[in-house]
Amino acid sequence: MPVKTKAKSNSRKAAVKASKNGKSKISNQKSKIKKWVLLSKEGNKDMRDLLGGKGAGLAEMTNAGLPVPPSFTITTEACNWYSAHGNQFPKGMWDQVVEAMKKTERAAGKKFGDAKNPLLVSVRSGAKFSMPGMMDTVLNLGLDDVTMQAVIAQTGNERFAYDAYRRLIQMFGRIVMGIDGKKFDALLDEAKKQRGMQLGKANPEKDTKDTDLTTDDLKEVVAKYKELYKNELGEDFPQDPHKQLDLAIQAVFGSWMGKRAVDYRRLNKIPDNLGTAVNVCTMVFGNMGDDSGTGVAFTRDPSTGEDDLYGEFLINAQGEDVVAGIRTPMKIAEMRERMPEMYHQFREIARKMEKHYREMQDLEFTVEKGKLYMLQTRTGKRTARSAVKIAVDMVEQGLITKKEAVQRIDPMHVVQLLAPRFDDAGKKAATERGDYLASGINASPGAATGMAVFDPDTADEWNKQGKAVILVRYETAPDDVHGMYASKGILTQHGGATSHAAVVARGAGLPCVAGCEEIHVNEAAKKFSVNGREIAQGDYVSIDGTTGQVFAGKIQTINPEFEQETDLQTILGWADEFRRLQVWANGDYPRDAVRARAFGAQGIGLCRTEHMFFETERLPIVRQMILAKSAAERQPFLDQLLPIQRGDFYGILEAMDGLPTVIRLIDPPLHEFLPPFEELLTDVTKLKEQIRYMERENVDFSTQKQELAEKEQMLHAVESMREANPMLGLRGCRLGITMPEITKMQVRAIFEAACQLKKEGKDPRPEVMIPLVGFVTELKNQREILEAEAKQVMADQGIEVEYKFGTMIEIPRAALTADEIAEYAEFCSFGTNDLTQTALGASRDDSERGYLQKYIEMKIIPDNPFQVLDRKGVGQLMELAVKNGRRVNQNLDFGACGEHAGEPQSIAFMHEIGQNYVSCSPFRVPVARLAAAQAALGQVTKDK
Amino acid sequence: MPVKTKAKSNSRKAAVKASKNGKSKISNQKSKIKKWVLLSKEGNKDMRDLLGGKGAGLAEMTNAGLPVPPSFTITTEACNWYSAHGNQFPKGMWDQVVEAMKKTERAAGKKFGDAKNPLLVSVRSGAKFSMPGMMDTVLNLGLDDVTMQAVIAQTGNERFAYDAYRRLIQMFGRIVMGIDGKKFDALLDEAKKQRGMQLGKANPEKDTKDTDLTTDDLKEVVAKYKELYKNELGEDFPQDPHKQLDLAIQAVFGSWMGKRAVDYRRLNKIPDNLGTAVNVCTMVFGNMGDDSGTGVAFTRDPSTGEDDLYGEFLINAQGEDVVAGIRTPMKIAEMRERMPEMYHQFREIARKMEKHYREMQDLEFTVEKGKLYMLQTRTGKRTARSAVKIAVDMVEQGLITKKEAVQRIDPMHVVQLLAPRFDDAGKKAATERGDYLASGINASPGAATGMAVFDPDTADEWNKQGKAVILVRYETAPDDVHGMYASKGILTQHGGATSHAAVVARGAGLPCVAGCEEIHVNEAAKKFSVNGREIAQGDYVSIDGTTGQVFAGKIQTINPEFEQETDLQTILGWADEFRRLQVWANGDYPRDAVRARAFGAQGIGLCRTEHMFFETERLPIVRQMILAKSAAERQPFLDQLLPIQRGDFYGILEAMDGLPTVIRLIDPPLHEFLPPFEELLTDVTKLKEQIRYMERENVDFSTQKQELAEKEQMLHAVESMREANPMLGLRGCRLGITMPEITKMQVRAIFEAACQLKKEGKDPRPEVMIPLVGFVTELKNQREILEAEAKQVMADQGIEVEYKFGTMIEIPRAALTADEIAEYAEFCSFGTNDLTQTALGASRDDSERGYLQKYIEMKIIPDNPFQVLDRKGVGQLMELAVKNGRRVNQNLDFGACGEHAGEPQSIAFMHEIGQNYVSCSPFRVPVARLAAAQAALGQVTKDK
Repeated sequence: MPVKTKAKSNSRKAAVKASKNGKSKISNQKSKIKKWVLLSKEGNKDMRDLLGGKGAGLAEMTNAGLPVPPSFTITTEACNWYSAHGNQFPKGMWDQVVEAMKKTERAAGKKFGDAKNPLLVSVRSGAKFSMPGMMDTVLNLGLDDVTMQAVIAQTGNERFAYDAYRRLIQMFGRIVMGIDGKKFDALLDEAKKQRGMQLGKANPEKDTKDTDLTTDDLKEVVAKYKELYKNELGEDFPQDPHKQLDLAIQAVFGSWMGKRAVDYRRLNKIPDNLGTAVNVCTMVFGNMGDDSGTGVAFTRDPSTGEDDLYGEFLINAQGEDVVAGIRTPMKIAEMRERMPEMYHQFREIARKMEKHYREMQDLEFTVEKGKLYMLQTRTGKRTARSAVKIAVDMVEQGLITKKEAVQRIDPMHVVQLLAPRFDDAGKKAATERGDYLASGINASPGAATGMAVFDPDTADEWNKQGKAVILVRYETAPDDVHGMYASKGILTQHGGATSHAAVVARGAGLPCVAGCEEIHVNEAAKKFSVNGREIAQGDYVSIDGTTGQVFAGKIQTINPEFEQETDLQTILGWADEFRRLQVWANGDYPRDAVRARAFGAQGIGLCRTEHMFFETERLPIVRQMILAKSAAERQPFLDQLLPIQRGDFYGILEAMDGLPTVIRLIDPPLHEFLPPFEELLTDVTKLKEQIRYMERENVDFSTQKQELAEKEQMLHAVESMREANPMLGLRGCRLGITMPEITKMQVRAIFEAACQLKKEGKDPRPEVMIPLVGFVTELKNQREILEAEAKQVMADQGIEVEYKFGTMIEIPRAALTADEIAEYAEFCSFGTNDLTQTALGASRDDSERGYLQKYIEMKIIPDNPFQVLDRKGVGQLMELAVKNGRRVNQNLDFGACGEHAGEPQSIAFMHEIGQNYVSCSPFRVPVARLAAAQAALGQVTKDK
Repeated sequence: MPVKTKAKSNSRKAAVKASKNGKSKISNQKSKIKKWVLLSKEGNKDMRDLLGGKGAGLAEMTNAGLPVPPSFTITTEACNWYSAHGNQFPKGMWDQVVEAMKKTERAAGKKFGDAKNPLLVSVRSGAKFSMPGMMDTVLNLGLDDVTMQAVIAQTGNERFAYDAYRRLIQMFGRIVMGIDGKKFDALLDEAKKQRGMQLGKANPEKDTKDTDLTTDDLKEVVAKYKELYKNELGEDFPQDPHKQLDLAIQAVFGSWMGKRAVDYRRLNKIPDNLGTAVNVCTMVFGNMGDDSGTGVAFTRDPSTGEDDLYGEFLINAQGEDVVAGIRTPMKIAEMRERMPEMYHQFREIARKMEKHYREMQDLEFTVEKGKLYMLQTRTGKRTARSAVKIAVDMVEQGLITKKEAVQRIDPMHVVQLLAPRFDDAGKKAATERGDYLASGINASPGAATGMAVFDPDTADEWNKQGKAVILVRYETAPDDVHGMYASKGILTQHGGATSHAAVVARGAGLPCVAGCEEIHVNEAAKKFSVNGREIAQGDYVSIDGTTGQVFAGKIQTINPEFEQETDLQTILGWADEFRRLQVWANGDYPRDAVRARAFGAQGIGLCRTEHMFFETERLPIVRQMILAKSAAERQPFLDQLLPIQRGDFYGILEAMDGLPTVIRLIDPPLHEFLPPFEELLTDVTKLKEQIRYMERENVDFSTQKQELAEKEQMLHAVESMREANPMLGLRGCRLGITMPEITKMQVRAIFEAACQLKKEGKDPRPEVMIPLVGFVTELKNQREILEAEAKQVMADQGIEVEYKFGTMIEIPRAALTADEIAEYAEFCSFGTNDLTQTALGASRDDSERGYLQKYIEMKIIPDNPFQVLDRKGVGQLMELAVKNGRRVNQNLDFGACGEHAGEPQSIAFMHEIGQNYVSCSPFRVPVARLAAAQAALGQVTKDK
């Protein structure tokens, strides 16, 4: 936002107005030179882009009439100009700094560099977002050999003055000039050690404190610091305060492009072109006696949300002492007793600030000789729990509206709030015990403790015996699902945030740490090792899916209950009032449906029928069905599966009574149900070799030969079904079209179950969904076959069941031909996982394990497109589909049932393009309810 | 095209005018009833939709004043109405038939069913496209016991009359009423046998002919036929000629939906809703003595294109005798001597017809007692060679324009014309010897003979020894390529028309029979077996890639030379005048470039650099490069590859001197260069088992252990690179971004080669192409890195090389974001193979082997989308890309380099959306030149 000079108008009103217009037209009649420096009274809280968070806060407080030391801010634009022009100040900036300093002097009644009444200032960086890696604060700027004498004269406190001076030289030397801080520390330590020995301390290295140093000690330290400075830099510590200021400003500007800051921005996706502002603020001193002090406080408890001041306070100390932990600060409550007047004055200001900002504030203040100064205010960071409580309380207190409350909660906080978590003390204790093992990808939030098991069958068995287990695998595969469901949590060595393990875990609401490459899983030996330590089957492990940490041993977990989270329920209730998008859930089993309803789901948007096929007792039938050579051979096995599937559907339709339940017909490539090719190949090769030797040795090998024949048969069957790219192979409706008998069986099972429920007075609402349609003719083919079957069942049973017929849109061609599809579908559900894979030509598993992470690091892509929907590519297809589909069929419903349907940014997009619903994992339903409401209310900027 | 009744206007002019308006408004004042029946004089050649090909031909000839027996046609609309309404004639149709018959009677001067002067007619089906499976001709309709006597009286030829009658009963009984034809044949054979015995023939069963039968014999046959008819149908042969006609019309209508006709249409993609017309034509008799006869003839030689009548003629015979082959017909030239007047009259008519239709005609005629009648005319089918010569000759003769000549050649005829083919006699001889083995998919046209080899290395070796080899594989893989290039032809047991083998073969112009599942290839034993016969390595086989046939032994091949095909060159020269689309070629080696230029290519649109990596001597270096753990470890191998690649590029840029050469940087997943996983797994398993036994037997196994270690290392390397869906994995620019050193080496090689050529006074035009871009940031990244490298090389060499930088558009996201890509690309080349795979979510190999064929059979899709571009899906993305890309960058060039770029329908689409060029295999360049011209000239309807 360029600040153009037009007419002199430094008044606060003009500035506020300009900012409200979205453009800062603060002007300067004298010249055409841009305004690079603003006095605090010239800014306001909405000017964070230009003044940074800190500068905007100072300005807002100043204009709110709070006691803020006079200060000014050099804009982020000056920083950007500086970076872009070979580290030169923009023309006119320095003059404006000098001018602003004069005005600050007048306000403070002191003069920068004055030998009688010197003004000291602090210089701080302050970007739009609070950001580590940039220049720290330099205090006491303006001190030199001359002004120090004036400070001594004014305060009558020589020790204070020397202490301030040595702090300046240290900070300036280290932060501004880049001298290794340890060198200053060493000199100070040396002085303390000498003093400690003189004081006869037992351990002078450790026990001696800064405060033990005498004025003479400090004089000595100042002298040594100056010597160090000169030795390091070849010049004297600058005795010209304006030179100090010049160098400090340059240091702040330079730190913006420093490695640490750049790295941080890369990690946190903050653009490089924001720049940082520089805040120059009149020094106030909390260390001028017992009527002085300093503190930091939140207006409410950032951890619980309780409506009470929360913070720490130190008497006769400077801010850095609080941070450095040299002295143990007191709780802010104690201030009430120790400095009652100051406390009440501060509490009043805190209340005023909260009312002013209509948000919980994080404040810094200093008391100088009984006078309170506010140094900083910003929106306070808080836990999920606190955020929710504060929002609800503030509505009740009339501070904010329900709408604002809903807008303020980060939807990801909801996930955090509902996930089981480790007891903090327990986690700390485990770490101290040395039980921290490794960190992986925090693939599904929550924490769990249990006995390690290394195969799904054992997991299942032990679970039935009432044992809590953690399933540990190199990576998981579809036939591990029964074991995953039987576990309290999942840990894998391999695979990303959307690997099979991660997706299933999130779907089931189980904690999962994935891709924990530090551990080495040996499934055959039933153990894993990490850094020389071994965890065997039955040993306890604890995993934190929220942070990705893995511990040995047990840690106590706390399990929040959705029903008891009344504040969250309140917020979600308000969210429901605002949102347009319906929130459905994905769920394959009645237990999922029950959970989904409890979380507020308005339907099941994806019931996968194939997970049921993987269950242990069914898999043999499924395999025989697959290996059948013809429809006729296949039928007996389908006949066996029919009652089982009918039972599945009866259960879920019963649980979803009265709500729509979208059942997707069989989707995955059939070879997924068969034993892995590699395993069979190994077995066959091994057996052949064994038989060769046995033959030579004249040993009877008839058993082996029998086994070989069986394995070879299976190997050939699996081989004949192997595909180069199964993701793009014989699956989805391609199965239903080439083997209609399978899908017919499924439709029969659905409608027989629905008819049964109707007879029992229930209200089943099945919706049949055909996967992987690319050509409308596929849909037409399936619809005709399946509707005939459905009608047949209903006729046989003499029952009419209301139902819908729809399709998934998960390959680009389906999206591109939605106008055709609209003629044969009543609803379309975007399968955003597969649509992303095909639209981007990127296999999820392969790319997440491979180049995708590198792409994100290199900023080739902003996010993992399997987590956050790619609007420009995948989104464009979706938007096209909605538009073209509705043009032909106005009543066509659009939903989405991929991973993205539970991700707030993606939900916002789905709202924008006019979808009817999203369908996410049951545990994500509260998140989606909130995100959908926020989408309806419009985007709000969030602090990083 | 519905024929609406409005006003009576049966004049020829009105009909012609109506048809020219595109709507037949032939009308009937009497009522609102549609006109279902047209006299021949009411139609014309453009009414094929309504009258069928035959009816339109009869009408056109009638109106051209040719001697056509009076006739009328019942429209295809009547047929459709009949099929759609439970096999009922539409209202008023029969009355119109009776009315038309009356007018025909007047024109013929005879009366249908008249006891004195009866009119006999033929009834024939006639759809828009000539189509087997529909009702054959019924002749002599109108004969019954009464009218037959009149025929005897009129002709004085009792035998002729009885013969005609028995033919009617036989044809009517079989064709109209569905009596098994063999039953009629048996009765006739019995009569012949009796007559033969009476004549004392040695073998009365075989030697006796129809013509040996006496009048009495025929009377007897008629009686027995009537008896058979009654026994079969329970009613007498209809004595009412109008009933005969009614039933015959119904039979024609019914045959349209008969199984054979429906199957034929399915196979040939003819819509079901065309319907067939019924032609009722006054009978003329070529069997009324030596002044009568019948014949069929083409106006030019359909095999060579020579401008001379070509056909056959029989004196004193009916048309069916020519077809039945009972008597050997004479060449049409002989007619000049035997019936000079008739011959000249016919030749005159033939010339007139050709001039009238401006096309080579296929004519049927009959001479009845010295009078010539034309019975049928249609565009004559012809060979590729003939088509080209006729088109060129007709332009020279002023019959057609160059434009028409270009429009008339089926582009696929060009492929046929240029492919090597088997000598017809040789093929026939092989078949007679019993050397025909099997048929597979005709995957790449042409014929080849050679010794069977079963692995690429032997192919390579034997080829170097000067042996002609045919590579026989279960299926081919990328590292077979050197062996494929060394072969004369390729035969695979497995894989479809776009399998690896097929694609490489078409690219190399090698004949290929793919997916020949009848043969069983045993690569280990170096042989294949088929129907109990074995072909071992070194045995001769002959494959015909145009037909898909496979023979044992040698067959002589004929190899057309493009340079000698002067007529084709003429046509292509004309085509070049009309087309806008440039035609480039894909080619990896200098030899491809030379070939491409010879065929008229205007550039190389795709030079793949990876094929070069597969070459035997380079592969070990490539493997080491791939297995390197870091960029630093990789560099030495890249340094080894640099001069080799520079040599590759020098060669192709030199060959393409002055023409653009698009070089695509490395594209395939790296594991393609490594040994197959399955092979390694088998080896490792085997070795482990062997060592186990050797250990037990105390045998020294150090060699095995060493081998195991090496294989295991490679296995792990390959395993770590394995991908679930390599098509969507780490390939294309993803390689170049994660391993920029590889692409840098390639760019360096390109520019070093170009600089060298410049120094030698050549004009290299390299264009660097980045594959698999999905995000513009990928392109930006690569462009920056690679342009820096290119500039460095040019600076080092002190040479400026003109070049372009572009990308492939082969995944949907690239097409959807072409506006962004346009900012960083100077050209975009559609990779339609991959774009089809991703847009349709269909792996080419998997789907072609699997469900795709079934989809085509089920009419789920009209064509294989990997052969004919899917306009609605893939095409939509391409159109979007061109539009959006050009909006941002007007000068952005668009090309295509997938399989589709050599397929005429797809080329037409690429012309329509405004692409600049297509790039196909060199052998397809002539096809593409022609197809591009036809696209520019607009679509022409072609006969099926």
